[in-house]
Amino acid sequence: MTLTLTALHGIPLVKPGDDLAEMILRALQQNNLALQDGDVLVVAQKIVSKGEGRLVNLAQVKPSPRAIALASAIDKDARLVELILRESRCVLRTRPGTIIVEHRLGFVCANAGIDHSNVAGEGTPQEELVLLLPEDPDRSAEELRQRLEAAAGCRLGVLIIDSHGRAWRMGTVGMAIGLSGLPGLVDLRGQPDLFGYQLRITQVGAADELAAAASLVMGQAAEATPAVHARGFPYALREGCLAELLRPKEQDLFR
Amino acid sequence: MTLTLTALHGIPLVKPGDDLAEMILRALQQNNLALQDGDVLVVAQKIVSKGEGRLVNLAQVKPSPRAIALASAIDKDARLVELILRESRCVLRTRPGTIIVEHRLGFVCANAGIDHSNVAGEGTPQEELVLLLPEDPDRSAEELRQRLEAAAGCRLGVLIIDSHGRAWRMGTVGMAIGLSGLPGLVDLRGQPDLFGYQLRITQVGAADELAAAASLVMGQAAEATPAVHARGFPYALREGCLAELLRPKEQDLFR
Repeated sequence: MTLTLTALHGIPLVKPGDDLAEMILRALQQNNLALQDGDVLVVAQKIVSKGEGRLVNLAQVKPSPRAIALASAIDKDARLVELILRESRCVLRTRPGTIIVEHRLGFVCANAGIDHSNVAGEGTPQEELVLLLPEDPDRSAEELRQRLEAAAGCRLGVLIIDSHGRAWRMGTVGMAIGLSGLPGLVDLRGQPDLFGYQLRITQVGAADELAAAASLVMGQAAEATPAVHARGFPYALREGCLAELLRPKEQDLFR
Repeated sequence: MTLTLTALHGIPLVKPGDDLAEMILRALQQNNLALQDGDVLVVAQKIVSKGEGRLVNLAQVKPSPRAIALASAIDKDARLVELILRESRCVLRTRPGTIIVEHRLGFVCANAGIDHSNVAGEGTPQEELVLLLPEDPDRSAEELRQRLEAAAGCRLGVLIIDSHGRAWRMGTVGMAIGLSGLPGLVDLRGQPDLFGYQLRITQVGAADELAAAASLVMGQAAEATPAVHARGFPYALREGCLAELLRPKEQDLFR
């Protein structure tokens, strides 16, 4: 069993309206990779969001009284706090500079995944751009997959990832925020272990494991390699979605 | 940038006192892999613990009153609860069948990482064996690394991993529980992004990302492939330790 992850060089800076599928197909060619059945393309949230035009000019955001109060309490730009609140279902915790939220997409993350870095320097001098997460990352992944499958004539998966902090541990790791054509969660219940006993660990966060693996080769600064080709994903491809990976609130001991 | 993870077939079932370094070197040969500078060997906790004889016979554990009370409250074997408490610094949460603890090794995990599965069937019919985590996984990794480096004559990393559940998300993922010769956390502070601005995401949980990647190719049932060879880890090897990955309690919003 071998899993090979290759960062795709040669993807240009993405602008709103760009054709990501086309860019990835060209990069695959440049990297001498021909798609095969079972391959998964892992794509950084940033280029998906940019392609979808999810840039917002802070100068045009009018913060609500709630955002102004929270911004003052945690020493953060009130316009950014306003966007974070708009992108979130609820606030879980706050500390100076950081708001941990349940994102409208259902997962828990810091500052609603809104990113200043890597869009600084874009836009006009009058603009202060920030980048929101894609509107519906599962749908973005599905659309990208259809394009790639049509071009390659084989069965693929597409995974959109972002870097998330975690409870209890230091450092960000790559995590799934949208997917199509691969399992989010793999259920091993009922499969015997080596001794024929039932497995006790029953569910594997397979898409998150692949997200972490791909994040490792993408690096952090490198918008230069915002997509990764993965060959050897060990579980059968099937329809999948992000919701598989989200723990129901009533089962979550750490809200 | 390519990261290649190969599950090592041919490692026999490990028994207390077995020479893991020897077993891994033999498996590398069988898998036609010659170690190179910068390679990382990722090893499942289970075989490290077994090699170190961390098996405990539940029949010989006498539960304390505290363990008996907790066991009754969450419907779990009081002797197992006793072991979990002994292996832990404190209990964070409980729910039926599960105790989330701060392990004596410093990380948060379910049931102190004590495993029933994959040791069932071992021991005599009178024994009910469970497996504790290694006594000092950083040290175990260090010892293994010294042996492998001496045999291969090159600079390596060794990472010991386990499958952990997570707050907020479903499914277990591979996480580092001990390491030697590679960074736990990679600090990108001060490195410019594409536009020359400071990076805002500063620290990457690199060893955890590699742990997740390796866990994917190890699978869950498969004690048959409890070690993974990783080539292409993208960060410079250096001395490292698990503690880098542990969030200081006073900075943790989710205790």
